Amino acid sequence: MARFTGQTERMGDQSALPLANESNSGPPAVVPALRWEELPEGPVVILLDQTRLPAEGVELVCTDVQTLIEAIQTLAVRGAPLLGLAGAYGVALAAARGFDVDHAAALLTQARPTAVNLGFGVRRAMSAHHRVLASGADAEQAAAAALAEARALHAEDAEASTRMARYGLELLEKLLPGGGYRVLTHCNTGALISGGNGTALAVALAAHRDGLLRRLWVDETRPLLQGARLTAYEAARAGMAYTVLTDNAAGSLFAAGEVDAVLVGADCIAADGSTANKVGSYPLAVLAHHHNVPFIVVAPTTSIDLDTPDGSSIEIEQRPGREVTEISFPQISVAEAGGGILLAPLGAQAYNPAFDVTPPELITALVTENGVASPLSGASLAALCPPCDSGHDQVMG
Amino acid sequence: MARFTGQTERMGDQSALPLANESNSGPPAVVPALRWEELPEGPVVILLDQTRLPAEGVELVCTDVQTLIEAIQTLAVRGAPLLGLAGAYGVALAAARGFDVDHAAALLTQARPTAVNLGFGVRRAMSAHHRVLASGADAEQAAAAALAEARALHAEDAEASTRMARYGLELLEKLLPGGGYRVLTHCNTGALISGGNGTALAVALAAHRDGLLRRLWVDETRPLLQGARLTAYEAARAGMAYTVLTDNAAGSLFAAGEVDAVLVGADCIAADGSTANKVGSYPLAVLAHHHNVPFIVVAPTTSIDLDTPDGSSIEIEQRPGREVTEISFPQISVAEAGGGILLAPLGAQAYNPAFDVTPPELITALVTENGVASPLSGASLAALCPPCDSGHDQVMG
Repeated sequence: MARFTGQTERMGDQSALPLANESNSGPPAVVPALRWEELPEGPVVILLDQTRLPAEGVELVCTDVQTLIEAIQTLAVRGAPLLGLAGAYGVALAAARGFDVDHAAALLTQARPTAVNLGFGVRRAMSAHHRVLASGADAEQAAAAALAEARALHAEDAEASTRMARYGLELLEKLLPGGGYRVLTHCNTGALISGGNGTALAVALAAHRDGLLRRLWVDETRPLLQGARLTAYEAARAGMAYTVLTDNAAGSLFAAGEVDAVLVGADCIAADGSTANKVGSYPLAVLAHHHNVPFIVVAPTTSIDLDTPDGSSIEIEQRPGREVTEISFPQISVAEAGGGILLAPLGAQAYNPAFDVTPPELITALVTENGVASPLSGASLAALCPPCDSGHDQVMG
Repeated sequence: MARFTGQTERMGDQSALPLANESNSGPPAVVPALRWEELPEGPVVILLDQTRLPAEGVELVCTDVQTLIEAIQTLAVRGAPLLGLAGAYGVALAAARGFDVDHAAALLTQARPTAVNLGFGVRRAMSAHHRVLASGADAEQAAAAALAEARALHAEDAEASTRMARYGLELLEKLLPGGGYRVLTHCNTGALISGGNGTALAVALAAHRDGLLRRLWVDETRPLLQGARLTAYEAARAGMAYTVLTDNAAGSLFAAGEVDAVLVGADCIAADGSTANKVGSYPLAVLAHHHNVPFIVVAPTTSIDLDTPDGSSIEIEQRPGREVTEISFPQISVAEAGGGILLAPLGAQAYNPAFDVTPPELITALVTENGVASPLSGASLAALCPPCDSGHDQVMG
């Protein structure tokens, strides 16, 4: 796997970092996944390198958009809402550093094809930048406007997390009266992907803080193990009772009646409610359906793309096969081609879609910051997001 | 993960080994997974260490039963039919070396709880041993009888492979006229688990040799990656068109209509047809059912246990959590507790059942050496295996 070339700053053992704030409305449970800093040599976007967690806490200091794009593509920074912030701050960085802002915006938008939020964040910051330029202000004022818009999006995202957690918890209480939830989740959807506490994991965290969570089942989420590495890391720091499992073992849990609800995020929701999320989500939806267990998607309305009519129209990112056939560890150097340790015979071909698509009929409910759609349909979805559509038009204008 | 302590013999790069024999009835496509040898210092059971494939070809030379049991428990030797052979040769080894045969048989039988074939192989060799002793012969003659019985089982297993491949291919031709099969398989079920070409993979190999296989989709099969490591190794050596995928990605293949049939093996088949197989098989059965794709189990009748009434009565082996939370490579030494590289936070708890259970209503057909049961039910299953039941009674007597 490609090694990151940007400037890095080692933070040492993550266990030494401050523990989670236990207040329900408190700050995120982990160190910020992304932040803007004004260094003496100029502004930078600082990312927590998620490919190195939980073994190492390493920050990537991005001084230009190309470095940020590389971080997006290697998944050092990842997760739908956080990609929106990365897109917006990327525009702000290009503007503040005097790069070609339009070119930077185009590159950022294309960095990952399925991620709707990435383009949304870019458009938000670009719209502010253009508006100020069009009013006759100078480049510095336009750059300040782009940064202000990125910061506004950041704050909105944190607020959306809080609202999703509340709506999600209300939904769980309605679907599963009495608490003691055993929740299965896939990939990572917590504070590491958000300005707040995230999406699906924010709901589980809210249940935990209210004493209603009995067990968080954490799918390891191959190939890049965001569940085992990142969700387990967040769950441990928040003091949740959690258990990691291979994605294969989820079926046994359903069959044993050990799953009360599935909570996942979303990378793109089409107009008919079809939802692209981390590969492995669709099999969980089929299992949940087979076992009559609620399958709940938690995502901000910024992940909804009404211009994409249905699941078959969602472009699914195909990632390199070596993510499947090799495994890499930052702490171990291996003298093999590509730097990874082979898990399959040399030359083995691999199929590696980053996402799969779950049709709306397998989704019990969609929880957004504007409320819950259940059953999920084109109509119930549209009812949740007039602002996102008009916002979309606005930033496209 | 525990390191094997038996005597080992490095065979070097597996790519230098002879390539697959292309004749349909030819010898197995890989080096023997298990063989008996009479060395000057005494008889031994030699195993190909499957934990080291495909990177390294290392043979384990077992001079006693304890070493063989360790190899069974670390999965250096694995797979239902091969475990039967390991059990029978283990009894023969104990007898030939003058160990306590009854004690060895008891230890071997308990080495892995779900594996029906292991106990079957032990009972076969023990029965021969006891019969000869009871006739007044000496220990040496009894040991020779145990070895002869192990060799007979070995030959029967090879013959069963050939018959399963033929019945399985006939079934595929009936279910999917016209060839061009895209077959999904899970775990490893080929020559590495058998005296012949195996079970499910033997059917795919037969289709390949008849020009009917378009694509073998190889589930990587976490946690121990028997698909990515072993099935891919066998497929490559046989010249099959194969593609590795994470277990998560199978759902995308079904949704895209890219799977014509699922072929898996079995570790234990209960009297009602409920089938325990490598964890992750049940989710595939649910997906196949959802997509109306045939889900076919291929297993010898020695994997059937009519004394186990149903799926809930099958004892499922729970394996160490560190198989999930750590990954080990023989070629890399890491100074961490347990010798593995951490994939999850230190101290993470993991749920790691070795098998799951698929109910008969999700199984399109069971292919055995005695024919095909479809639909699978207690009655159709019993019709396939009068010999296995009477054989069972005989060896228990």
